[in-house]
Amino acid sequence: MIIVLKPDCTEDQLGHILEKIEEMGFRHEISKGVKRTLIGVLGEEDQLRNAPLAAIPGVEDVMSVLKPFKLASREFQEHDSVIELGHGIKIGGGALALIAGPCAIEGEDVLRAIAKEVKDAGANVLRGGAFKPRTSPYSFQGLGEEGLKILRAVGDEMKMPVVTEVMDPRQVPLIDKYTDMFQIGARNMQNFNLLTEVGQTNRPVLLKRGMSASIQDLLMSAEYILSNGNMKVILCERGIRSFDSSTRNLLDMAAVPNVKGLSHLPIIVDPSHATGRPDLIPSMALASVAAGADGVHIEVHNCPEKAMSDGPQALLPNQYADLVKQIRDLAAVVGKTIPATQSV
Amino acid sequence: MIIVLKPDCTEDQLGHILEKIEEMGFRHEISKGVKRTLIGVLGEEDQLRNAPLAAIPGVEDVMSVLKPFKLASREFQEHDSVIELGHGIKIGGGALALIAGPCAIEGEDVLRAIAKEVKDAGANVLRGGAFKPRTSPYSFQGLGEEGLKILRAVGDEMKMPVVTEVMDPRQVPLIDKYTDMFQIGARNMQNFNLLTEVGQTNRPVLLKRGMSASIQDLLMSAEYILSNGNMKVILCERGIRSFDSSTRNLLDMAAVPNVKGLSHLPIIVDPSHATGRPDLIPSMALASVAAGADGVHIEVHNCPEKAMSDGPQALLPNQYADLVKQIRDLAAVVGKTIPATQSV
Amino acid sequence: MIIVLKPDCTEDQLGHILEKIEEMGFRHEISKGVKRTLIGVLGEEDQLRNAPLAAIPGVEDVMSVLKPFKLASREFQEHDSVIELGHGIKIGGGALALIAGPCAIEGEDVLRAIAKEVKDAGANVLRGGAFKPRTSPYSFQGLGEEGLKILRAVGDEMKMPVVTEVMDPRQVPLIDKYTDMFQIGARNMQNFNLLTEVGQTNRPVLLKRGMSASIQDLLMSAEYILSNGNMKVILCERGIRSFDSSTRNLLDMAAVPNVKGLSHLPIIVDPSHATGRPDLIPSMALASVAAGADGVHIEVHNCPEKAMSDGPQALLPNQYADLVKQIRDLAAVVGKTIPATQSV
Amino acid sequence: MIIVLKPDCTEDQLGHILEKIEEMGFRHEISKGVKRTLIGVLGEEDQLRNAPLAAIPGVEDVMSVLKPFKLASREFQEHDSVIELGHGIKIGGGALALIAGPCAIEGEDVLRAIAKEVKDAGANVLRGGAFKPRTSPYSFQGLGEEGLKILRAVGDEMKMPVVTEVMDPRQVPLIDKYTDMFQIGARNMQNFNLLTEVGQTNRPVLLKRGMSASIQDLLMSAEYILSNGNMKVILCERGIRSFDSSTRNLLDMAAVPNVKGLSHLPIIVDPSHATGRPDLIPSMALASVAAGADGVHIEVHNCPEKAMSDGPQALLPNQYADLVKQIRDLAAVVGKTIPATQSV
Repeated sequence: MIIVLKPDCTEDQLGHILEKIEEMGFRHEISKGVKRTLIGVLGEEDQLRNAPLAAIPGVEDVMSVLKPFKLASREFQEHDSVIELGHGIKIGGGALALIAGPCAIEGEDVLRAIAKEVKDAGANVLRGGAFKPRTSPYSFQGLGEEGLKILRAVGDEMKMPVVTEVMDPRQVPLIDKYTDMFQIGARNMQNFNLLTEVGQTNRPVLLKRGMSASIQDLLMSAEYILSNGNMKVILCERGIRSFDSSTRNLLDMAAVPNVKGLSHLPIIVDPSHATGRPDLIPSMALASVAAGADGVHIEVHNCPEKAMSDGPQALLPNQYADLVKQIRDLAAVVGKTIPATQSV
Repeated sequence: MIIVLKPDCTEDQLGHILEKIEEMGFRHEISKGVKRTLIGVLGEEDQLRNAPLAAIPGVEDVMSVLKPFKLASREFQEHDSVIELGHGIKIGGGALALIAGPCAIEGEDVLRAIAKEVKDAGANVLRGGAFKPRTSPYSFQGLGEEGLKILRAVGDEMKMPVVTEVMDPRQVPLIDKYTDMFQIGARNMQNFNLLTEVGQTNRPVLLKRGMSASIQDLLMSAEYILSNGNMKVILCERGIRSFDSSTRNLLDMAAVPNVKGLSHLPIIVDPSHATGRPDLIPSMALASVAAGADGVHIEVHNCPEKAMSDGPQALLPNQYADLVKQIRDLAAVVGKTIPATQSV
Repeated sequence: MIIVLKPDCTEDQLGHILEKIEEMGFRHEISKGVKRTLIGVLGEEDQLRNAPLAAIPGVEDVMSVLKPFKLASREFQEHDSVIELGHGIKIGGGALALIAGPCAIEGEDVLRAIAKEVKDAGANVLRGGAFKPRTSPYSFQGLGEEGLKILRAVGDEMKMPVVTEVMDPRQVPLIDKYTDMFQIGARNMQNFNLLTEVGQTNRPVLLKRGMSASIQDLLMSAEYILSNGNMKVILCERGIRSFDSSTRNLLDMAAVPNVKGLSHLPIIVDPSHATGRPDLIPSMALASVAAGADGVHIEVHNCPEKAMSDGPQALLPNQYADLVKQIRDLAAVVGKTIPATQSV
Repeated sequence: MIIVLKPDCTEDQLGHILEKIEEMGFRHEISKGVKRTLIGVLGEEDQLRNAPLAAIPGVEDVMSVLKPFKLASREFQEHDSVIELGHGIKIGGGALALIAGPCAIEGEDVLRAIAKEVKDAGANVLRGGAFKPRTSPYSFQGLGEEGLKILRAVGDEMKMPVVTEVMDPRQVPLIDKYTDMFQIGARNMQNFNLLTEVGQTNRPVLLKRGMSASIQDLLMSAEYILSNGNMKVILCERGIRSFDSSTRNLLDMAAVPNVKGLSHLPIIVDPSHATGRPDLIPSMALASVAAGADGVHIEVHNCPEKAMSDGPQALLPNQYADLVKQIRDLAAVVGKTIPATQSV
C-alpha cells in the first residue's frame, strides 16, 4: 500500500498517520517528492487492504500494489487448471468444452432431440435450465426438479456431462444430485452466500461474469468458491452492459487473455448471451477460440419460434453443426483439442 | 407489439408469421410502408412479450409498446405510496426518510453512540449491517445474529425504526424478527428467489438499484416483490457503474424524477455508496432532495479510521448534523416534511 | 511516479531500470515490500508522465501520484474564477448563469419571441446555434453566418450576452465577431486544434463535457485552452453515455462538486441534453443548483413541434418561467444570486 | 415511423396529431390496441426522422423503423467494397490489410528501421503519426509536415502505402500531398467538418470508432464522408470506453460481424489502442481475423522504452513477426489472403 499525503498535511497529521500504521502492526517508509510526500506501508497486503487508511485525516489517496485474489492467481498456481466434467470430458490445458443445448428444459422429447443433434455435431457438454432467472415474474420460470430429472436422464443416455443453473443456496443439495457442473448466472456472480455454498461441494462450477463486473470482481467471486475448498471453477465471459443496444450485451473478448494472464482457471465464452443475435454467434465463437478460450457455450434449439425462453437468440442444429466444423479447423491451427463424447 | 418484416420477407414467410400469431391467439393488422411492412400484433401485452416472435423467419425486429411492469406502475396506482416504517415514521407522499448509521454493526457501544448522534441531528431511521456482502472472502463479513440483536436493542432505545440488509432467502425469517425494513443490496437486485421470499412477508423492503440495472430492470425487480403480495417497496438509487474512477459509482440523479413518472413507489438516494467520497456526499444529498427524492441514506461513523467496513466513505456525526440543517431548509422550499422520532 | 516491479524482475533488469531513470534526469528511491519492490521516481511530474517507464522490461505497473492538469487546478488558483460575459452578466463566485434559448436559430422573429420570453422569465444569457453538429448529414445544419447576425441583433436588443457553438477552427474569427461566448460541444471536447484556436482568443469559452470523458479528461481539455492564454473557461456537465436508454444521456450530477474540489473554474449543468426529456429537466435544474452549479443551460422553444432541431426536448416558455421561480427560491437557500439583465 | 399515443390522449389531441402529419405531407394509419393506440406514419423515412413528432401533445413515444444511414448500408450496395490503397495493396473482399508502424514519426532513421522490420514480417501498410491528438497540451504533439515528408519517403522506399492521421480540416490539403490514406482518430469521429472535408477528396479514409459511439453512430459518420462523394471508407474498431480499467479500452469484437451485416464497407481492428497491452494484442489480432475483420492495425516500435508516444503499448518487431506468421495460418483457414508488398 502507498499512502499519498495531501499537500497541506500537517506534521501533527503525519505523526498521527504513522502512529496508526504502527498500531495496526505495519511498517512504513517515507518518500518526499517534489509536490507530494508518500508513505510506503509494508505488511501483509490482505490486512493492509482491510485497514481504513483512506479515512485518516491528511491522507489524499491510498494506492494498492497487489491484486486482492490469491488462490485464483497465476502466482498461486503457475500451470493451467484442468477440470474433469464427467463422462471422460475435461476442460482446460488445451481441451475445448463445446457446451450446447436449449436455454430452458421444456420436456424430455424436445431435450432429447436437441441433445442428439448437438452431440452429433460434436458438442461434448449438454446444457439446459430448470430454474430460470427471469427479469419478469410473469415469464416462464423453469420446470424445477422435473427439469433436472429430464436433464440427467438425457445426459446419461447421450453420455454427455450436463450443466444447469443454480440460483439459490437452498437448491444446492437438490441440483447437486442431478448435475455434473453448477452454473452460476451473471446476475448471481456476487451472490456471495450462493458462492460459499457451491464452494463447499466438490462439483465443478461454471461462474459467469456479471454484467458490470470487472475482471478483478470476477476473480474475487471465484476466490469465494476456491477459498471454501472447491478448486474446480471455470469462468465464463458472457458480455457486459454497454450503451450500444444493437447487441444484447457487449462481448469483452480481451477478457480471455486478460484472465489467462492473471489466473490458472479455465475461461470459456458464451456468445449467445453476449450478443443475443444468431447472426453474430458463429463469428464470435470462432474469435473466442482464436483468442485462446477453453470452450464456447452456445444455445441451440430445434424450433426457436416455439422456445419457452430466449428462442430468438438460439442457433438451429444445422447452424451449430456448421459452426463446430469451423471450430474444429481453427482448433487445429491454434493447438487445441476437442474431447469427444462416447458413442451411444 | 409491432413486428417489422425483413425487406426480403417472402409471401410464404408472411403467411407463416400470420399463422403463428393466430395460433398464439393474437390478432394482427398489416401496414405496408415505403420500405418496410409492419404487423401490429394485438392482444395481452404480457402474453405477447413471452412469445418468441423474433425467432420466426422473415422477422427483422419486434418492438414493444408497453412497459413490462404492472403493479409498480403509475397506471396501476396514480397516487404516491406512503409506507409506515414503525415508531411513527413514514416515507413517501411528502415525508422524507433520513436514514443514517454505520456501514456495519461493530458492537453495541459504538452503535449506540452513533445512533444517538444521528438521532440528535434529525435522522429518523437507523441503519446498520449484520450480514455484509463483501467483494472479498477475506474481508469482515458482519456480526450476524449478534449484530441484529444489537441493532434492535439500540433502535428501540432510540425509538427509531431500523433497516438492515438481507442477502440470502434463508435469512429472511431470522432478520424479519429483528428489523423494521429489509434492505436488498445492489448485488442482489436480481436475486429473484430473495425478492420472492421478502415479497411473501409483510415488511417494508428497501430495494437498491443494481450497478448495471436500467430503471426498467429496477421496477421489474420491485414487481417480483409486489406480485408476491408485499406492496411496501421503497426504491433506492445508489449509483451505477461507469468509466470514471474518480467516484465509486455514478449517481444517476435523473432516476428520481424518472421513477416518479413511471411508478407510485417512493425512491430515496444513497449518496454514500453512489460517490464513495465524504466531500461529495452533502451536495449530492441536497441535490437529491431538490430532485424530489423521498429520503437520503447516509453512512455515518464516529471514528471512520477504525470502521470495520467502508470507513473512508462515512460522514462524521458533526458533518451529518450540518447537512441535516441544510436539508431542513431545502425541504421547506420544496414542500417536504421530515418526520421526527419520539424523544427518549 | 511509482514503479511497481514484476515479482520475477531480475537484478539486471532492475539495474537497467535505474539507469534509465537516471538517464532521463530523475532521482529514485527503492522500497522492498513483502511481495513487491517499488521504485519512487522523483522529478517534475510532467516530464515523468511523458517518459515511457511502463515499457521498460521488468516493470509491472506505473502509478501516477499527481493530477496532470495545472492551470485548471485549485492548487494553481485557490479562489473561484468569476467570468464576465458582457452586458453586466458574470458567472462564478456565487453568480448563477441562466442560459436559455432555442437549440437552433431558425429566423429573427422566432428568436426574438423566444428571447423576450426567457428574458422576462429571468434568463440572463441567450443561446442559439448557427452551426449545428448533427449526427446525420441529412439533418438541418444551421443558418451559418446569417444565424450569427440574428443572434447578435436579438442579444443586443434584449441586452443579453449570447453564446453559440463553434465546430471548426476556421470558424473562430467569424464567430468571434458575433458572440460573447464560444460554446465547444461535447463531440468536440477533444478537438484539440479547436481548443487551441479558441485558447488564443480573449473570449469566454463554454466547454461541454464529452460523452465518454472523465472529469480529468474534461479538465485536460480546459487546460488546452488555458495553456494558450485564455483563462475564461466555463465547464458544462451535459450527461455521459450510459446503458439506460430511457434518458438521452446520463447526468453525472456529482461532477459539479467533483470539479469544484479539483478546479477553480465555474461549472454549469445542461439538463436539456443530459436527459432529453422535458419532464425531467425542471427537477434536474433544481438539483444542479442545490449541488452547487454556477448555472443551468436549458433549451426553450415557443413551438417545439415546429422546431428544426431537438424540439422534443425543449421546455415551453411558461414551463421555463415556472422553473426560474423555483430556482430563485432555491438560490436564496443555497446562497447564490442571479444577475439580472438590464431592462429594454 | 410509429407514434404511440399516451393512454390519456384526447380526441382533440389525436385530431391535432393527424393534422400535423398531413401538414408535413405524410400518410397515417391508426391501430387501436388493448391498451395503446398507435399511428403508423408513412412517407420518406429521412423526412420523417427530422420531423419533431415527439413534441406534439398526446404523443408518448415515437419509434423508428429504418436505419438512418443509406450509402453506407448493405441495402445500397450488396457486395463488399474493395478499396485500393496504392502500391498494389487493397483491402476488403477477402484481402487483409496488415497496417503497422510506430505511434508517432520520431525521425527518418527510426521510422526506416521499423518499416523495414514490419515489411519483412509481412505488413503491407505503414502507419505513423505526424499530428498527434494528445490528451495533454504538455505532451509531444508530433513532427508536423517534417514527419509527413519522412513518412512519404520511407513508404516509397519500402514500396508500402502509408496512412497518417488528420486532425483539422485545414490540414487536409497538406496531408493529402503525402499520404495514401487519411486516418480520422476516435476523438474526431464526430468532427463533422473534418469528415466533410475528407469526403471532398478522392483519397481512402480510415475512420476510427469513437469511444462512446454506437455502431449506428459510426456508420452515420461514414455517411458524412460518403455523402460528400468519397466512397473509399474503411472502418476501424479500436475499443470503447468501459468501467474495467485493466485494459485501456474495451474491444467490441462483435462490431466486426455487426458492421458487416449492416454495411458493405471494410472494417479492421486496432488491438493496440483497444487494449493498450502488448500481452493482449496478439490474441486479439488473431480473434479479429477469425471474426471476419479485413485487417489489423498494430503499433510496432523497435525501442518502446524510448518511444515518444504510447511506447508501453507497442509490440517489438520480433513479436510482430511471430504474430503475422500466426495470422497467415489463420487466414488460410478462414479464406482470407494477405496482399504482399513489392520487394525492394
